[in-house]
Amino acid sequence: MNLFQLVNEVREKNPLVHNITNVVVTNFTANGLLAIGASPVMAYAREETANMARISGALVLNIGTLSETEVESMILAGKAANEKGIPVVFDPVGAGATPFRTEMSSKILKEVKISIIRGNAAEVAVITGEKWEIKGVDAGSGDGSIVELAKKAAGLFGCTVVITGKDDVITDGVTTHIVENGHELLTKVTGTGCLLSSVIAAFAALEKDSVEAAGTAVSAYGIAAEKAAATTADKGPGSFQIEFLDQLSKISKEDEAFAKIKTTKE
Amino acid sequence: MNLFQLVNEVREKNPLVHNITNVVVTNFTANGLLAIGASPVMAYAREETANMARISGALVLNIGTLSETEVESMILAGKAANEKGIPVVFDPVGAGATPFRTEMSSKILKEVKISIIRGNAAEVAVITGEKWEIKGVDAGSGDGSIVELAKKAAGLFGCTVVITGKDDVITDGVTTHIVENGHELLTKVTGTGCLLSSVIAAFAALEKDSVEAAGTAVSAYGIAAEKAAATTADKGPGSFQIEFLDQLSKISKEDEAFAKIKTTKE
Amino acid sequence: MNLFQLVNEVREKNPLVHNITNVVVTNFTANGLLAIGASPVMAYAREETANMARISGALVLNIGTLSETEVESMILAGKAANEKGIPVVFDPVGAGATPFRTEMSSKILKEVKISIIRGNAAEVAVITGEKWEIKGVDAGSGDGSIVELAKKAAGLFGCTVVITGKDDVITDGVTTHIVENGHELLTKVTGTGCLLSSVIAAFAALEKDSVEAAGTAVSAYGIAAEKAAATTADKGPGSFQIEFLDQLSKISKEDEAFAKIKTTKE
Repeated sequence: MNLFQLVNEVREKNPLVHNITNVVVTNFTANGLLAIGASPVMAYAREETANMARISGALVLNIGTLSETEVESMILAGKAANEKGIPVVFDPVGAGATPFRTEMSSKILKEVKISIIRGNAAEVAVITGEKWEIKGVDAGSGDGSIVELAKKAAGLFGCTVVITGKDDVITDGVTTHIVENGHELLTKVTGTGCLLSSVIAAFAALEKDSVEAAGTAVSAYGIAAEKAAATTADKGPGSFQIEFLDQLSKISKEDEAFAKIKTTKE
Repeated sequence: MNLFQLVNEVREKNPLVHNITNVVVTNFTANGLLAIGASPVMAYAREETANMARISGALVLNIGTLSETEVESMILAGKAANEKGIPVVFDPVGAGATPFRTEMSSKILKEVKISIIRGNAAEVAVITGEKWEIKGVDAGSGDGSIVELAKKAAGLFGCTVVITGKDDVITDGVTTHIVENGHELLTKVTGTGCLLSSVIAAFAALEKDSVEAAGTAVSAYGIAAEKAAATTADKGPGSFQIEFLDQLSKISKEDEAFAKIKTTKE
Repeated sequence: MNLFQLVNEVREKNPLVHNITNVVVTNFTANGLLAIGASPVMAYAREETANMARISGALVLNIGTLSETEVESMILAGKAANEKGIPVVFDPVGAGATPFRTEMSSKILKEVKISIIRGNAAEVAVITGEKWEIKGVDAGSGDGSIVELAKKAAGLFGCTVVITGKDDVITDGVTTHIVENGHELLTKVTGTGCLLSSVIAAFAALEKDSVEAAGTAVSAYGIAAEKAAATTADKGPGSFQIEFLDQLSKISKEDEAFAKIKTTKE
């Protein structure tokens, strides 16, 4: 299969992605989803999250600025999505930075069947119960193998795990993609990890195979970043952010030529 | 009267626009209002919304990411504005997408005297009780006449109704403007409808005739979009968004030459 | 000491700045902090704000869209920061615009030991109990001397006070800096005052002397604005905003040559 065909499908079918996400990235997430051709919707109230999730193609749960009320909403939405077989992407932003985030992550993972987890190594380590150093919401450095960590998490939660960093690892424990696309400037714009989680959700809305959906999304996203950096890296993160949205709006199956994906199977 | 004179007046008098709006668009709304020369303020707490509304030139109630608490704040602010004769613009984002949004829209419309409603056809149909297809917060397609729908809503709520889409309809049931300004790229940037509601509020703060205020705002807004698209359409939605803010900051009464407004009276 | 050395230190040491701020500016604040090299984190929940404050280099309390719940979180975070000697920057956005904001400002100032207050003249006047005219969240005009006002506030709260406006005043009552850097376009982009408060916090995380930290931050910030305006002033506030982020990412100790700081000591 031409995986990047999925990029064109998202643009043609405009899957509705329901985001319960943090207040820092809502605008950027909505604009990024629009740029790739998806339809974003944000809805947080307990009274409506389950209903909104049911009419969506995918659901994103992002704990970046969560409150206890919001966790309730996430669980209601997550259970509703589970009942209808709608994929749920979980982004454990800053898990480990405070006990509250770690506990709420566990609670969500216990109550909701997650399809795809996307985080940095430190966050995934925390929710998996592995030792890793963390500082705020940025990834710390660790000494374990990131691929091993991703596989362990995938086994523990029975889902696909995406660990982003210098290289990105996508695995369900059987198929593993290492994606070498992307650019360091992504770390200089807030919410690029959060937006990626939502882009993965848009792809997962149309492709049942989570590893393939996530692998394609991560690679396409990285290619857009590379193209944006090519013309803005010397200008700065403001210009990069805008050019990145522009490039996301142009990414297509033709860009598969730039994909750097190494796949192994067990 | 030279309607576009109002564009210059907004820039000279900097009307204070109080927005109780959704978390996705707050930043873009504030920057857009600043660009046209208005003074934005956001205030959500029950303890202060009425007081803030009283010192404002106009109030915007936008339900894009509402919670039950926020609805209370909206009603308190709305009633305070009503008592002082301050115009209230209502944006029923995603009404119909969930029962909660539909119910909360009804509640607000029952408790607060609205001056201007701004939505897409699907949203206005829902609050008016007409059948229309809806998908998330995007407008669905319908088979009824949009002008008829707008007039029906205007009659039902006794206010001016703005339905935006390919063409925009502004009517109070007597005077009807059809505005053909605007650009498709507006649909690729999140919050352009929400910002328009707030821009209409800024104009309504200075012009008592709601149909004229809204008609001028919609046309001027569309002209800024056309100018922005002229230089950024081939770049993408990121560049368009920034250029659009730039163009909003330059719009003036001279731009009336570009206005495409057809007016009918009954 | 070469004060602008601090600009380089921020970029090297990436201090973690915990922001409890308003929903309008979260994204811009995070991107601005990333641009100068700091690590932003936003956390609002009562359950975690104290923990997050304890691991941060500085804490920012900004009341731009506060609720009563958020004030509780601010006080919990503020007390935790106080216990560990972590500097706390307070931004009383719109104090005076409503009684609620004025009362909550007083409450925060009573419960938390603030290191640096940053506001416009009207806001600082309100919290200091001086008469000043205010309109929304914009600064009104007053007839008192701004330097005197800043010194009075510094004496009353026993901290450093930064009043921004055409010129900026930074004083602890003994050392006073008048900074003439900056550009009027900063008033056309929402959140530039809020972001400055957070940038001051990043500098205060590394420099114990609050007047020096704030003076350097204010000057460096103003220089970035001047550079951004040099190429975007005729384009508009959209372009300025992006170029400003770019320039913040390039500011360095070499820019001390552009600093316009007048210092007096008593």
